[in-house]
Amino acid sequence: MHTIRTVEAAAYVGQPVRLTGWLHNLRQLGGVNFIVLRDGWGAIQAVTESEADLEPLVGLGLESVIALTGVVIATPQAPGGVELHQPHIEVITPITETGPVPLNKRQIQAGLPLLLDHAVVANRHPARQAVFRLAAGAMAGFRQTLLAHHFTEVQTPKLVASATESGANVFELNYFGRPAYLAQSPQFYKQIMVGVFARVFEVGPVFRAEPHDTTRHINEYVSLDVEFGFIESHFTVMALVRAVLAGLFSELAAHYQAELTLLQANLPPVPENIPHLHFAEAQELILKQHGVDVRGEPDLSPQDERWLGEWAQQEHGSDFLFVTGYPMVKRPFYTHPDPANPAYSNSFDLLFRGTELITGGQRLHLYGDYLAALARANLPAAPFETYLEAFRYGMPPHGGFAIGLERLLMQLLGLPNVRLATLFPRDQKRLTP
Amino acid sequence: MHTIRTVEAAAYVGQPVRLTGWLHNLRQLGGVNFIVLRDGWGAIQAVTESEADLEPLVGLGLESVIALTGVVIATPQAPGGVELHQPHIEVITPITETGPVPLNKRQIQAGLPLLLDHAVVANRHPARQAVFRLAAGAMAGFRQTLLAHHFTEVQTPKLVASATESGANVFELNYFGRPAYLAQSPQFYKQIMVGVFARVFEVGPVFRAEPHDTTRHINEYVSLDVEFGFIESHFTVMALVRAVLAGLFSELAAHYQAELTLLQANLPPVPENIPHLHFAEAQELILKQHGVDVRGEPDLSPQDERWLGEWAQQEHGSDFLFVTGYPMVKRPFYTHPDPANPAYSNSFDLLFRGTELITGGQRLHLYGDYLAALARANLPAAPFETYLEAFRYGMPPHGGFAIGLERLLMQLLGLPNVRLATLFPRDQKRLTP
Repeated sequence: MHTIRTVEAAAYVGQPVRLTGWLHNLRQLGGVNFIVLRDGWGAIQAVTESEADLEPLVGLGLESVIALTGVVIATPQAPGGVELHQPHIEVITPITETGPVPLNKRQIQAGLPLLLDHAVVANRHPARQAVFRLAAGAMAGFRQTLLAHHFTEVQTPKLVASATESGANVFELNYFGRPAYLAQSPQFYKQIMVGVFARVFEVGPVFRAEPHDTTRHINEYVSLDVEFGFIESHFTVMALVRAVLAGLFSELAAHYQAELTLLQANLPPVPENIPHLHFAEAQELILKQHGVDVRGEPDLSPQDERWLGEWAQQEHGSDFLFVTGYPMVKRPFYTHPDPANPAYSNSFDLLFRGTELITGGQRLHLYGDYLAALARANLPAAPFETYLEAFRYGMPPHGGFAIGLERLLMQLLGLPNVRLATLFPRDQKRLTP
Repeated sequence: MHTIRTVEAAAYVGQPVRLTGWLHNLRQLGGVNFIVLRDGWGAIQAVTESEADLEPLVGLGLESVIALTGVVIATPQAPGGVELHQPHIEVITPITETGPVPLNKRQIQAGLPLLLDHAVVANRHPARQAVFRLAAGAMAGFRQTLLAHHFTEVQTPKLVASATESGANVFELNYFGRPAYLAQSPQFYKQIMVGVFARVFEVGPVFRAEPHDTTRHINEYVSLDVEFGFIESHFTVMALVRAVLAGLFSELAAHYQAELTLLQANLPPVPENIPHLHFAEAQELILKQHGVDVRGEPDLSPQDERWLGEWAQQEHGSDFLFVTGYPMVKRPFYTHPDPANPAYSNSFDLLFRGTELITGGQRLHLYGDYLAALARANLPAAPFETYLEAFRYGMPPHGGFAIGLERLLMQLLGLPNVRLATLFPRDQKRLTP
């Protein structure tokens, strides 16, 4: 007899099988008993009219770990189209205590604090499982697309000797008696690695000591990072962003329909050419369409982004919009200026449904330009010595981008809080579970 | 005209192509000039008798970033079997300074400190590139095998509220005014996630504040972690270890022959059944074969491991040997004892060529057993409260293992120091580059 996963049951109609998992639900309705087993991939229902079949569950509660043995019956009206009849029930781990969060309702009936305090158990809920299965699928789709484009995966250090992009908002620790910091991003290392492999990507944690208390910020998140050489400009990077998003969503479309349906989420079509607007054009558009003059502002506000998102949808039928050429003054020192107008940069943000999802651009690649940029930013060169070595000994024009995995899920799934896209979120108040 | 990577050139014989990369070597031999271009994947040679063709390189040094244009010629005696004749050379980033480490010799002519101090450049050496391409391949092979076994990838927090496995050797940091720690392993979280997905894996950094100064220790490394439920015993885990190693090495065999050849490394055959010895049997064997009585010792010494590795090779022709049943006294509190002999554990080490490579085993899964184990270990239950919630609400028998990526590469490639398997190693003295 095969031991199978719930999602495989439809392929075993008429055959005896064994399934293992958690007692997700038990309903006794007028002499008919429904036992629902949940495993790591889905759920299956077993039906019996015999009280004797239920004997092993007497006195036990939900989340008891069990095995069900029985013949798979095609049952169109059952969830998943199959069920077991008159199962043999074996108890693997008996549970009697009632859990902190009910798991057997379609919607999770718990507020955010309760959900996060008890994430250890709450993440077992099918709707929570679905979010994190999609996270795994997003990582897989990201990597597959980049491997197909001949990128090499790297793992760069998270313990660093100096704060990278900015001195503020960095976690400091005691490293054998001297200060070390947690990397805010793999930015410097991924650039260095362009000198080695020309095209690199990394999936890993980044740490931001930002004292933000918003629905969009957490202090540790998973960053999907890309960097590559021999580009023309930031438009080469934007073309890769487009390919990566298309590859990522097509992986989800191919293998995660059940999760998307459960979460009532729609995958956005990724246009062959994602529309783009220059930063200055975007500000003109806002003035023209909404009568609000934001020209001269060095950045876009959330309201600006929403307006631009609406415009992209109306004008181009696109959930996505690139805004290019952000002013240099708001971009980090390694940003490449627009050669035609050096107050603007060869950088971009990708707005997804009216909210920034991805930031990227072309970087400086000449050693002399780095020395000048650090001087302009009033930064000493010494802490950047090893980073600068990459440029001193030959770097091509290059650029890249980063996607926050949790933000991507939040926006894709319409979650009200990024914490709901994080297994065990870290914020100012939360270090557990 | 196609812009191609060096490793694609053999497919373009007779066609004009463009290649971009670094000026790896330039030799002028009696009127014939050899230009070697290195890119992120390999190298190609271009040949010209015309000094005029070299004009763009006058005054420039190695590591200048260049593009070569020319027709691919099949040349059996050339490295890779193809070369360009009379290339057009374009300089993308001119370099005049001589680098800190010569990159164009077959062997790297630099001692370890120089190599590590200048890893930013030294990692461009073909032999260094090959190590890190194999690291990428090992991660890909690991993930592929586990995905094929229906494991779900997770990303768990690296910032934690309490030291996990042991209180010592953990990095502490200031987390918004209170102490936090860097995770020494994802052990607790991967177990918790067995309650969600039944089978999980994670690839990510782990942090050990161990004050070791050896060739085998670094303070941040990449851990390949696996955990899964519904096992019989540690032997179920060992069977998965075998499948993962076989999958990982077959990925390397399929796609990384050039790297393995360059590094003169042989992939070990993974026996269908990896031999195994109980810890007590292993000690008896050492007494019998070497006359050294280590019976009663709670652990194996490096010398013991070497002897056992030799025995596995002689007796079974195997590079691998499982030693099972390590004494409970040396295993962490969550270790499952051997039901037949509770002084020993349901755990194992995998020795590879006489050195420990993987540690794993069955874990406790009953809430009551955890409370008893913590009490026995004189550990308070409070810091483990959220971890224990997983067991309180239903966990199956489960187990797992972890592979240190850098150790795997070190042993596979016969590297003298684990730092050579790490892009930018972190040790007591080294936080840069």
